[in-house]
Amino acid sequence: MAVLTPAPHRAVVEHLVRQAVYSRLGRPLPRAAAAPNPLVVNVSARHCHLTQAPVEALFGKGHELQVHKWLYQEGQFAAKETVTLVGPRSRIISNLRILGPCRTLNQVELAYTDGIALGFDLPHRISGDIRGTLGCMLMGPAGFFEMEQGVIRAMRHVHMHPTDADYYGVKAGESMTLKIGGPCGIVLDKMLCRVDPSFKLEVHIDTDEGNACNLQPETPCELIK
Amino acid sequence: MAVLTPAPHRAVVEHLVRQAVYSRLGRPLPRAAAAPNPLVVNVSARHCHLTQAPVEALFGKGHELQVHKWLYQEGQFAAKETVTLVGPRSRIISNLRILGPCRTLNQVELAYTDGIALGFDLPHRISGDIRGTLGCMLMGPAGFFEMEQGVIRAMRHVHMHPTDADYYGVKAGESMTLKIGGPCGIVLDKMLCRVDPSFKLEVHIDTDEGNACNLQPETPCELIK
Repeated sequence: MAVLTPAPHRAVVEHLVRQAVYSRLGRPLPRAAAAPNPLVVNVSARHCHLTQAPVEALFGKGHELQVHKWLYQEGQFAAKETVTLVGPRSRIISNLRILGPCRTLNQVELAYTDGIALGFDLPHRISGDIRGTLGCMLMGPAGFFEMEQGVIRAMRHVHMHPTDADYYGVKAGESMTLKIGGPCGIVLDKMLCRVDPSFKLEVHIDTDEGNACNLQPETPCELIK
Repeated sequence: MAVLTPAPHRAVVEHLVRQAVYSRLGRPLPRAAAAPNPLVVNVSARHCHLTQAPVEALFGKGHELQVHKWLYQEGQFAAKETVTLVGPRSRIISNLRILGPCRTLNQVELAYTDGIALGFDLPHRISGDIRGTLGCMLMGPAGFFEMEQGVIRAMRHVHMHPTDADYYGVKAGESMTLKIGGPCGIVLDKMLCRVDPSFKLEVHIDTDEGNACNLQPETPCELIK
């Protein structure tokens, strides 16, 4: 089966077109077009990150995650594999997508709406900070895996390359604000900046936030210090 | 069975205490305490409004809605009765609460998350404006009712008494902004003002918006023109 390579995000195409048009007209670039990179805002649906051991427990010895769809961050992908999550009150979420490649930590990222469906208060954490959080049981076709901790709502964040951080005048760990327009626009404060030379500029919000403002590819977004 | 009379909303108690303390100290009231009424922000979970005819079709001839819980707006209540909604793609939402008393219009108000679960794009409308929207089938213990139109996402809005509208300097139909604080605070633009002498000051947001910011009774909120 062919791996889906998604079409470029609309924000990427718009950024290229805007830069080309202004340069052709010989006019100075407006602020949005002068940014080193396009601002891509994506909604992260609920998902999990796993180490290799649970992947084998769930899908069989030696199993490796298969690429379903490449994500915007280089080398990251939505895997073909999904699992069933059994929460602490025995309630279930089916078809929880695994993101690959495997990491060094097991973590499930849900929206508050999912937490309400599962019947418990999700802790609101920076991705990776799972100390003291509740765990869950994962079920796959080849077996179970008991995650002792790691079910969280991830804090909204923006992935930035150092050139993006320079352009916006922020440092790793600082916060920014995202303005999302449209007929039910919202402003999201406390958008954590995560800076790494391997990152492409991309905001991740969850499905609650994305649905609150009905984020669509053409919805105007602005990142503000 | 006793009708639930909810304890006063925390915002109401805080407003009374704040006014009493400042008056006792003989000091001028700060802005929040000087408002004529406390700012109550409530999350509206999905629900429907019905006329008497469908209530009888669903629950039997002569049936009248029973009060489960009184709401903040005078005379409004969550009914004991719930229905099952069958959407246009035959997907189902169970336990959809009816709000009473009966109105002159049938309308179902869902969050976008519900629309995604049902598999169609919810129109984003001012409550009451249902021309050209999709309908649904409702199922109750005594029968079915086919709603020809009226399934919407209601625009976020604020109910205001004329004294509140005067205080905030707005008119019916204008928009305000709601700032919601806390660790995952958001700012909601385009909050429609609905003004009526029968209204108490209350903002209604839906579950997507409430979950995006994890609104709790103690979460600080501010209404801005």
